[in-house]
Formats: sequence, C-alpha cells, structure tokens
Amino acid sequence: MRKKQGLLIILDGLGDRVNPELNGMTPLESAKTPNLDYIASQGMCGNVYPIAPGIRVGTDVGHLHIFGYDSNKVYSGRGPLEAYSAGMKLMPGDVAFRGNFGTIEDDYTVIDRRAGRIRKGTKELATAINGLELSDGTQVFVKELTEHRLAIVLRGKGLSDKISCTDPGTAEEGAKLIIPSPLDGTSSAEKTAKNLWEFTNRAYEILKEHPINKQREAEGLNVANVVIARGAGQERDIPSIKELYNIKAACVAGDITVGGIAELVGMDYFCDDSFTGSFDTNLKGKVDLSINLLKEKKYDWVVMHVKATDLAGHDNLPIEKRDMIEKVDNAIGMILQEIDLNKCYITVTADHSTPCEARDHTGDGVPTIIAGGDVRKDSINSAGESQFMSGSLNNLTANDIFMMQMDLLGFTDKVGS
Amino acid sequence: MRKKQGLLIILDGLGDRVNPELNGMTPLESAKTPNLDYIASQGMCGNVYPIAPGIRVGTDVGHLHIFGYDSNKVYSGRGPLEAYSAGMKLMPGDVAFRGNFGTIEDDYTVIDRRAGRIRKGTKELATAINGLELSDGTQVFVKELTEHRLAIVLRGKGLSDKISCTDPGTAEEGAKLIIPSPLDGTSSAEKTAKNLWEFTNRAYEILKEHPINKQREAEGLNVANVVIARGAGQERDIPSIKELYNIKAACVAGDITVGGIAELVGMDYFCDDSFTGSFDTNLKGKVDLSINLLKEKKYDWVVMHVKATDLAGHDNLPIEKRDMIEKVDNAIGMILQEIDLNKCYITVTADHSTPCEARDHTGDGVPTIIAGGDVRKDSINSAGESQFMSGSLNNLTANDIFMMQMDLLGFTDKVGS
Repeated sequence: MRKKQGLLIILDGLGDRVNPELNGMTPLESAKTPNLDYIASQGMCGNVYPIAPGIRVGTDVGHLHIFGYDSNKVYSGRGPLEAYSAGMKLMPGDVAFRGNFGTIEDDYTVIDRRAGRIRKGTKELATAINGLELSDGTQVFVKELTEHRLAIVLRGKGLSDKISCTDPGTAEEGAKLIIPSPLDGTSSAEKTAKNLWEFTNRAYEILKEHPINKQREAEGLNVANVVIARGAGQERDIPSIKELYNIKAACVAGDITVGGIAELVGMDYFCDDSFTGSFDTNLKGKVDLSINLLKEKKYDWVVMHVKATDLAGHDNLPIEKRDMIEKVDNAIGMILQEIDLNKCYITVTADHSTPCEARDHTGDGVPTIIAGGDVRKDSINSAGESQFMSGSLNNLTANDIFMMQMDLLGFTDKVGS
Repeated sequence: MRKKQGLLIILDGLGDRVNPELNGMTPLESAKTPNLDYIASQGMCGNVYPIAPGIRVGTDVGHLHIFGYDSNKVYSGRGPLEAYSAGMKLMPGDVAFRGNFGTIEDDYTVIDRRAGRIRKGTKELATAINGLELSDGTQVFVKELTEHRLAIVLRGKGLSDKISCTDPGTAEEGAKLIIPSPLDGTSSAEKTAKNLWEFTNRAYEILKEHPINKQREAEGLNVANVVIARGAGQERDIPSIKELYNIKAACVAGDITVGGIAELVGMDYFCDDSFTGSFDTNLKGKVDLSINLLKEKKYDWVVMHVKATDLAGHDNLPIEKRDMIEKVDNAIGMILQEIDLNKCYITVTADHSTPCEARDHTGDGVPTIIAGGDVRKDSINSAGESQFMSGSLNNLTANDIFMMQMDLLGFTDKVGS
C-alpha cells in the first residue's frame, strides 16, 4: 500500500447537548467555524461513540480508544491509569493504586476522605513519603495529582493486584479505613495486602508530623495525614502502536494524562511550557509544532490535543466553550494554510462529551470528521452535533475511526488474500 | 452525576412493514400520531434492533434486552425462556426444557416429532401429566404452548442442566428417542438425566391412554403420546437492575410475561385487573399509575407497556393495529399534559416487530424515540419506520438504547478517570 500522512485533532470533551444559554444549540453548533465547516464538507462526518452508546469514559480511556486500543484489555484496574496520569512509569509486576490524601483519627476513623480538598503542599507531602522501603524490600512510589489526589505504586517481587484496598468508599460518619486483604488464595495477594497496610501506617506516622500539616492544623484545616488507596491494578503487556501498525506517531499535548497515554502506546510525546492545558494554551505553538513534525516527514501520524473545551464543560461555561471552539477553528485555519488536504488527511474528534449542563463526561457520541484527498464525501458541510446525526460516520466508535485512519494512511494488513 | 427521571413506553410488536391495506404504509406511518410526532421532534429517532439485524426475538427476550440484559447470559439454555413464555415461574435450581408433543412407537422410534402439528387438546394432555412426582421426589410441571409445543420444569434438590435431552433432533426415519445422559461427572447431572427419562416414560404411559389420543387415533391422526425434550437450562443468578445501576425502576403492564421479566430483573411490577393485555386495556389507568409513580418520586425509571399492538400483528389486523396506535398516541397526549419533558425524559420503543402480513415476530428494527430536555435533536419530526430510517438512532440495539437512558438519567459509572 502507498503510505500517506495524517493529522488528528482532538478537542477534549467537545461533544455537548442542547443548551438554553445558546438558544438551544450546542457550543459547537453555536460557534462560527468556517474551517471546521470546510473540513466537514471535504469528507465524512458523524457523532462517534468512545466505546458504545451511553458508556461514559474518562480522558485516559477515551484516548486509548482513539488510539485504537480496547481499555478493557489494557488494564486490570484503575490504578495504572492514575500512575500514568501522574507521569510515573510502570514496570512489569508493579501494582498501582489511585489514592487520596485524607484525614483520619488514630483509630483509623475517617474524618474526611479528601483532607479538606487540599490544594497546596501536596507535592511536599507526596515527596515525604515517596520511595519508602517496606520490611520485605518492596518499594513504594508516590506522586501527587490534582487537589487531594495521588498515585501510588508498589514495586517488588511477587506482588498481585487481587487485593481489597483501604478506601471505605463512603463518606458515612464513623467509617474506618479497611485493612487490606487478599481476594484470592495466592501468597502474592497476601504479601501485597500486608505491604499496602504497612505503607499506610508508615505514611501516617510521617504525614501527621509534617510541617505542612502542622500549618494546616494551626489554620483549622483538615490535615492530610493519611493516604487512602483504591483501584489496585497491574499493567498488561500491550503491543505499541508501532508494533501493531508499523506507523510512526507523535502526540502534541499540554495535558499530561494525554501525554502519558500517548507514551504508553508508544507514541513520541511533545510538550512545551506554553501548552498549559487550559484556555490560555499556546495554540499557535501547537499548530507550528504539529505542522513541522509532519513536514519533516519523521512521523506518519501526528495527534494534536486541546484540553480547554473539556474544562469549559466541567465548569458549565457554554459561552467560553463556544469561544474556545472558535479559537481552535482559527488555529485549524492556520493548519489549512500549510497542509495540503490532498497529501495529508485531517481527522477531528473528541475523547468524550462533556455537556456544560451535565458538568461531567457523558455517554453521548462525539462530533467527528475524516477529510482529505480521496476520502468519500457525505452531504454534511457544517460542523455540529445535530448536523452530524445524519452523517455517514454516525454511531461508529472511536476504534472504528482509528482503523479508518490507519486504512487511509496505508498502514493496515489485509485479512485474507 | 445529577439524577433525572425517565419514562419508557413500550408498544409490544409495534414495528411493521409496508402493508397493502394501508396504502403501502405501515400501521405507525398510517396512524395519526400528533403526540408521537411531537416527541420525535424533541429528540432522537431510529429503528433499533432487539439484538441484531434479522434476529427474531420473543417478548421475553425482547424485554430482557430493553432492560439492559443480554439474554444469552441470563439463561444457560432455551428451556427457561419457554417456561417464562408459558407463564411458569422458575425457582432457583429448577431445570427447564423446551418440549414437543410427538408420536412414538413402543420401542421409542419417533414417527412424528410434532404429533401431526396437533392444535386441539394440548391443554388437556399437558394437564394430565402436570405435577407428576418422580421416584426420588422430584416434581415435574408441564404447560402447553402454541400447537405441539410445551414447557417442562423439573423441580427438586440437586438438579443440573448438564444433560443430553431426549430429542433425536432429526426427522430421519427410524430415529429413536435419546436416553438422557449426564454431560459432566456430577451426581446432579446423573440424577437429572434419570429423572427426565423416568418422566418421559411415565408421561408416555398416561398420554397413550388419554381420550384425546383415542379420538385422534379414530380420526387417523398421529397421536401425541410422548413429550420430547430439548434445551435444558437453568436460570442464572443475575444481578438486579438496582444492583447494577443503583436505579429504582417500576413496570406497569397487563401482560404477565412482561411482568415476569420485570420482576426477574428486580423491578417493581404494577398491574390491575383492568390492564387486560388486549385492545380493551385501561390505557388511562396505566397512564395515571405511571404518572403517579413518577410524581411520587419513588422511582427513577418507570416502564409502561401496551400489548395489543402485538396481538393485531399476529392476527393480521393492520387497521386495528393502526387504531390501537392512535389510542396509545392519545394516551401519550395525556402524559405530555402531566410530565414536563425538561424534567423527565420520554423514550418510546418496542420489544420486536410483528408485521401484520408476517403474523409473527420478525427481525426488523423497531421504531424508537429518546426525547426530553437536553437530548440532542435530529431532523426527524414524524413517527414512522420509513422516517426513522434516516434518524440518528437507526441501527443501534435495544441494549444501546437502555444504556443511553441510564446515561441521561445519571446512573452510569465512568470508565477511566
């Protein structure tokens, strides 16, 4: 097969629903998007499901599916996803957890599962308990995430993710930390459960004396004296995108979760301090970098990611979401000046919908376009959820859109002869 | 996620095909349905497959899929489905079979696997062998179905569905009944195989002397002197809809099969003597009850079921089917007076198509609408199979529509973070 290049533009959380502040339109429908409209007119459109209709996904899982993977096959639990979000590298055999800084009493009664939604000082607290060596030689790595969240990784011989974790999973008064126990009869599960409990206690002794917590105590704030863990998981051995399709792929993004997922699947990740992952991100910088990566011919497939559309959804800011879409449309205009659609396919999609009124990810389909050169054209020539409902890609899945791109680019094997 | 309420209206067997008595329209297309048209204009439409294109389902299986289950995973064999179709209630441990009345000679040679497709007298024959107690105390319950078909249930301690059944599965001359044998090494399978064979012989002794068969013999018809069993199955322990989605759901229906399936999946079932499951059912009563269940806020999701559209299909009565659809449309008008679409989503669908000319369930997609509040709107504003073919839900499945409702109502977990 002849090989071609492709650019994939991901607008995080782009999909939305009918919004009263926008005259019953969605932000995308309401936005002036001459460049997205043009791309739509040059190919196929539709609302595409990250996994399946009604299934809500996180940014991590959404991107795995955009990159052609089935999230169910990649991880055994949620912990490894958080570790990747935190920029940690997992090694075979590691057990990873999602964690919270929380507040407990001496008898393990949980006062606050989120330590007053602590924002400041979590880096120092995480550093204080990072790298602990447990009595059997197992090491524990800890890295802070946003607010009270953190990722925890146990590294040692013979560990297993088949354990119950310490999170009581409820905000009910009087709930205590759960003492971890093995979920199967293996000695590795028993060992891991003991390790997690030893770590929890050792971390407590360190955290409760930490200056940051002394300061919080003085200010009348809930102290972050405990690490509460859940979502034990181990990474499965997954083949990279290069091994699977022999394609060289790069990802340009400010969001470290997206960057982590891109690296996990073997893409080269490009970032810059000016890529803030927010409304003030350097869109021109992302555009220039993406165009250069394509022009230098070092990559067959370049992914450019924009985060702020998702943030606007979470904060119920439909006007800001519409305005951000218009900014991205302007950036796409710059791309169209430099990239010849006859030589490089352009795909636009999202990892999930984040409707403003829902303020969270939903299971709605995401607006998607595949355009360029010899791509078949359907009758859609305007970008919007309602317009795309009669498009030719409607109701396909993110995995489908990935395979269609690999097929257009010429990187798939024939089944049969 | 914020939580909302939803109403699901099921018109049994609604889907139909082009009909000459209706100027080449379907009953739904031909009916005047201002209220269904309005709901269609307020959301997304399409023809939706119960399982997959071309797959015909019964009312029981159709409803399981509408309620979010995969019928293949709920049962281990087809027997339990037949028992439910016959209105029998299964208890944990029961083994159920699909059965035929057949004709055999004394040496078990099968003369006719369907006893001349017997139509009359099967109720009397089934009654004559119903409630037998076998030598180990196991009880056998039998209930006739249409024509030569019946359902058989073994109830006792330590039974298993891992047995071969008596049906030779062939119309070849000289084929004999199969003596049941265990398919695994368990004593429960051995016990069940022995029980089925004892029942087969006991039933034979009773049936061959039955007056109905003496009469058939006199008329030169094949006698129904044996029960031939296949499809051994047991009900699996399936999680309820409440366990799976933490949703409180109610079902308002006159049809006991639908009520049975609703209870099987953990919904509260509401019925009334005036809900006849036929053309004269008390639609206003169903509407009032459904509205009250929603208004009292005891339920998040209320299902209202109407049977008569299916009956009209089976009896090839296109005019009556159209008229029944108009009656239901009128009832939906009452609902729209009381329910605010901004506060409660309304979904309309069917368990399967029962085209009048086919006089049976077919594998066609079923007309489906999801509407209300912030639901995206496609361009469809008139209810009908042909109109819905270009709708945004077209070619999705009943399971998809269920998950989309759970997503809109706010009862799904996010995959990933």
